[in-house]
Amino acid sequence: MKMRRSSFPVLLLLIAFASSTGVAADEGMWTFDNPPLKQLKDRYGFTPAQQWLDHVRLSSVRFNDGGSGSFVSPNGLAITNHHVAFGQLQKLSNAQKDYVRDGFYARTQAEELKCTDLELDVLMSMENVTARVQGVVKPGMTEKQALDARKGERARIEKESLVSTHLRSDVVSLYAGGEYWLYRYKKYTDVRLVFAPEQQTAFFGGDPDNFTYPRYDLDFALLRAYENGRPAATKDYLRWNAKGAADGELVLVSGHPGGTERELTLAQLETQRDLIYPERLARNKRQLQAVRAYAARGPEQARQAADMIFGLENTIKAFTGEYNGMDKNLFDKKRTEEADLRAKVASRSISSGSELAGLARQIVVYVAEIKKPDAERLDGYHDSQLDELKFYLFSPAPIYPEFEEALLTQSLQDSLDQLGTNDSFVMAVLDGRQPAEVAAQTVRGTKLKDPAFRKSLVEGGAAALAASTDPMIVLARKADPYFRDLRKDYEESVESVLTSAGEKIAKARFAIFGKSIYPDATFTLRLTYGTVQGYPMNGTKAPSKTTFYGLYDRAASFDFKPPFNLMPRFIERKDKIDLPTPLNFVASLDIIGGNSGSPVINRNGEFVGIIFDGNIESLTGNFEYIEETNRAVAVHSAAIIEALRKVYDAAPLADELIGH
Amino acid sequence: MKMRRSSFPVLLLLIAFASSTGVAADEGMWTFDNPPLKQLKDRYGFTPAQQWLDHVRLSSVRFNDGGSGSFVSPNGLAITNHHVAFGQLQKLSNAQKDYVRDGFYARTQAEELKCTDLELDVLMSMENVTARVQGVVKPGMTEKQALDARKGERARIEKESLVSTHLRSDVVSLYAGGEYWLYRYKKYTDVRLVFAPEQQTAFFGGDPDNFTYPRYDLDFALLRAYENGRPAATKDYLRWNAKGAADGELVLVSGHPGGTERELTLAQLETQRDLIYPERLARNKRQLQAVRAYAARGPEQARQAADMIFGLENTIKAFTGEYNGMDKNLFDKKRTEEADLRAKVASRSISSGSELAGLARQIVVYVAEIKKPDAERLDGYHDSQLDELKFYLFSPAPIYPEFEEALLTQSLQDSLDQLGTNDSFVMAVLDGRQPAEVAAQTVRGTKLKDPAFRKSLVEGGAAALAASTDPMIVLARKADPYFRDLRKDYEESVESVLTSAGEKIAKARFAIFGKSIYPDATFTLRLTYGTVQGYPMNGTKAPSKTTFYGLYDRAASFDFKPPFNLMPRFIERKDKIDLPTPLNFVASLDIIGGNSGSPVINRNGEFVGIIFDGNIESLTGNFEYIEETNRAVAVHSAAIIEALRKVYDAAPLADELIGH
Repeated sequence: MKMRRSSFPVLLLLIAFASSTGVAADEGMWTFDNPPLKQLKDRYGFTPAQQWLDHVRLSSVRFNDGGSGSFVSPNGLAITNHHVAFGQLQKLSNAQKDYVRDGFYARTQAEELKCTDLELDVLMSMENVTARVQGVVKPGMTEKQALDARKGERARIEKESLVSTHLRSDVVSLYAGGEYWLYRYKKYTDVRLVFAPEQQTAFFGGDPDNFTYPRYDLDFALLRAYENGRPAATKDYLRWNAKGAADGELVLVSGHPGGTERELTLAQLETQRDLIYPERLARNKRQLQAVRAYAARGPEQARQAADMIFGLENTIKAFTGEYNGMDKNLFDKKRTEEADLRAKVASRSISSGSELAGLARQIVVYVAEIKKPDAERLDGYHDSQLDELKFYLFSPAPIYPEFEEALLTQSLQDSLDQLGTNDSFVMAVLDGRQPAEVAAQTVRGTKLKDPAFRKSLVEGGAAALAASTDPMIVLARKADPYFRDLRKDYEESVESVLTSAGEKIAKARFAIFGKSIYPDATFTLRLTYGTVQGYPMNGTKAPSKTTFYGLYDRAASFDFKPPFNLMPRFIERKDKIDLPTPLNFVASLDIIGGNSGSPVINRNGEFVGIIFDGNIESLTGNFEYIEETNRAVAVHSAAIIEALRKVYDAAPLADELIGH
Repeated sequence: MKMRRSSFPVLLLLIAFASSTGVAADEGMWTFDNPPLKQLKDRYGFTPAQQWLDHVRLSSVRFNDGGSGSFVSPNGLAITNHHVAFGQLQKLSNAQKDYVRDGFYARTQAEELKCTDLELDVLMSMENVTARVQGVVKPGMTEKQALDARKGERARIEKESLVSTHLRSDVVSLYAGGEYWLYRYKKYTDVRLVFAPEQQTAFFGGDPDNFTYPRYDLDFALLRAYENGRPAATKDYLRWNAKGAADGELVLVSGHPGGTERELTLAQLETQRDLIYPERLARNKRQLQAVRAYAARGPEQARQAADMIFGLENTIKAFTGEYNGMDKNLFDKKRTEEADLRAKVASRSISSGSELAGLARQIVVYVAEIKKPDAERLDGYHDSQLDELKFYLFSPAPIYPEFEEALLTQSLQDSLDQLGTNDSFVMAVLDGRQPAEVAAQTVRGTKLKDPAFRKSLVEGGAAALAASTDPMIVLARKADPYFRDLRKDYEESVESVLTSAGEKIAKARFAIFGKSIYPDATFTLRLTYGTVQGYPMNGTKAPSKTTFYGLYDRAASFDFKPPFNLMPRFIERKDKIDLPTPLNFVASLDIIGGNSGSPVINRNGEFVGIIFDGNIESLTGNFEYIEETNRAVAVHSAAIIEALRKVYDAAPLADELIGH
């Protein structure tokens, strides 16, 4: 793991510059309006019909908290990774029942558990709106004026579409502003948990094996989309092929890669290497330390912190891999001054990890933005985005005050340590007190834990909010001007310039390459292709697949010590499992974070596996794809059926998957 | 694999210079006169008694064709690697019975097969003769005179010892001439094959997995030393511990590392990287191509060529790893002129791989050298060395004329290609004809295939040899002056200078470090220690051991395709084998080629495994030992017992090993 998308701070969303020209044979994350038909034909002799493409697209699902998935039965059954469902599993658990640790299986539909705040999206249509978005930029406009004009037009298009179609409507920028597309999604917000293995089974090998291969993980979960209280009728779903894909076979992936920076200039790469990565890693490590300390307080605290620890470890390992992938001999400069500034800016935060602080901040911004005309609002607060925002703001997902207090303390302490006592932001939020004191008073005093209270604040509007004495709201109000300043500075001095410059370069690239190249990833639906194949590794060959034998070998090799321990049912039922059954496999698929849970599909459009990770060699994928060694790691379709039948006594579910 | 010793051309035997100073915690190949008592005590709290050291030494066996082993029963039973016994297995096979492919098991002592030319040595005593060897060098001597004087004195010491003790007597140089020791060995020349698994079982994973880990190889063979036609009574032997060593446990290795170059100067390392390695790799690859072409002619040819193909692949992989371990950014020079010269010199050979050409060459040299006073002869032809030489010269081991012809053709063609038609050596040996023609005429016409004919030539002396019209002898006579010139040049311009300079530096190092450091490896008995432990590998952890599960996983992962196929008996008896049984394991032991077959011993002096390889990270071991990742790879003692009992129906042998 984990191809789950990381959330990037806005400052780090550098817009891509054009620099590279060629595309390797199996490289590319292609949009469905421009599939790689020529490459598929030339290299694999495969020409998917439009019907094939539409069917795959309509079977693909976006998990809105950062992953991908697909429908695998006509009755709304969707598959994704365990680590994509992790957050929902945790929210459905409590001190008495821990579905993360113990797994979950609903033997009947009545037992399926409703997720607290999960939205699934299916891409219904794509419409090119480039001319309309670019058309609003008039000669003589400054960069900032042009950016505002485009943002306004995008918001108008989204709102018009929402009103007329009632579909979620997003205008997405591709090719660094070279094209704009209106993507319309059907949303499912009643999603219920059907099955998940124990986390140890899904994440066997833990952080050491994360982002590596050979692997032995059953990293999948099954959920069901409901409409009107009944399982959704999903006409488009992927038929299950329990034989999987053979070594050397063409496979395709339809999923939502979160972001890439393949077109960065040398100067931008240098900035990433010397400033952004080191700073980000250091900050993540500080936070991980605090969260681990919280988890050490007891088993229930450990359960609450599990998803965040996983996410931070995952991010740190991924960033470290990406960072090590940048050739350190290429540059020798140090720009400590800029690094220092960036570290300071990043430290002006009260909400790194804290749900309550995040909710307070969003409510404060919401109330301010909602008064403005739609086109002038900050991104995330447009009319077309309010449904999704409220779904999150009013979610009944559990909040753990003790954990919140620990997270807020760490965040405030980090600001103090990084910025010093005389920093105006620090003075504003701490007001001479210690971070722990502020955190305790704020978390213990706030009523934001209650969704109804949050709803009353949002509905009360500006006056009610200004009058509120809720300590978390007070803290968010204090911090708000700093965030607004930061955002304004960023838009004026960075974003508008980069977007405009990027658009110019993108136009120049179009003139040369047209759409023979693919756009950087944007967490929108992409089609990727490659071959099931091993690769040279550490002096020998990594095989294209692993088997259940390997799971037992690796566990026994480490004397069954965590993170290489097996759940008791795997020990008890060892002799029932057909050990040569393929467990995981790799293919030369160009994927990245956000692709977690994507289906692996054969040329017949059948489901043969589910993406859950990339190998260590793929960690440079943010910047470049190296076909010789870059591999996506997937759970084999046969392993899921074998486990459901032989280990989990879930034959009815296996039957539903294979269609009888 | 393979820790089998490579034979280095004399030109490449650069004498070590002093440069490094420190020794890592588990580093070192220590002589038995100077065991690492302080390190063992400080790090492991272990103080072996003198009796422990003597017992381990007397249980250790040197396989004179390039490996190590140990006695493991009181009845002369010795264990080594399959790949050390490979040559003997091949010599005992023929077109009808192929013990390399099919394995071998003597169910009774009567069925044990006598090896054709295998000598086992046991180190009985060590005597410091430094003062005597260095004492013959007088003030005013040139470097060459000093070298000759030392060589003469060494030969005298060896001969005196041989006459008085009837033990094989070698004066060995340690610490680059800083010390000279007289080592006396008890020899066993009647050695019989008892058991060997199929090569595919011993070398599962083939060249891809060679020099890597995790591994799943049963790389062992059992032989029995005889004296006077009866199994030798070997009072000193290692008791078998079928539990093996635990993760984190101290283990020790007693074996014969072939050679290291740990003290090379920067300039010498540069020479290795820029000249010696590339040239040697290119030459080995040319030869491998020719040998593979020969093997492709048919199954019997493939059988004949198998050991040589294995050896060349093994050498190429090792050299490539060593070469890649040298930091290429360190230097940027190219000394093509010197490289060219070295390539030419190396090409003046007729005997690369051809047994007959090698025999002819040795007979020609033998007859010339034997006339001289003992002290003045070339090394290898001293009185004390004649027994061993004759054991080889008169061996009844089979010779395959068709293979010989292919090898000689390749060697002559290589000389022609590298040196051109006008080279005096090429003109002398080819005389205007094509390489294939010369090879055919020479191999088909020679009677050297017959050991009796070789004996008659040796006993006939100079006159008989000069009169011989045997075409292989004629060819060897033509080539002889070139080899003599080359050797003389090397001694005068390189060896005498380097030995003398090395001795000076070694003396300087002694003044500083004394024997707190260990001497470079010299294929003499050494003691090495380390911990059973995994290591960081490719983004995750390699475990300290593997299990039989892993064998089946890796085979199934590659769909049982060679070199990952399993012998039928492993398929048939899968359910009989206790799959969690440890198969291979790793420890931070400082070993190198020549250590193949060395016993791994616990603090009780018990046998817990047998060394058969190093991991890919250990391939820089010739130049440096890196404790974090350098690992020796061994077969686990439990795996050998499990395989003998459950797979090979060889319970009596397992009983003999475990002592009941």
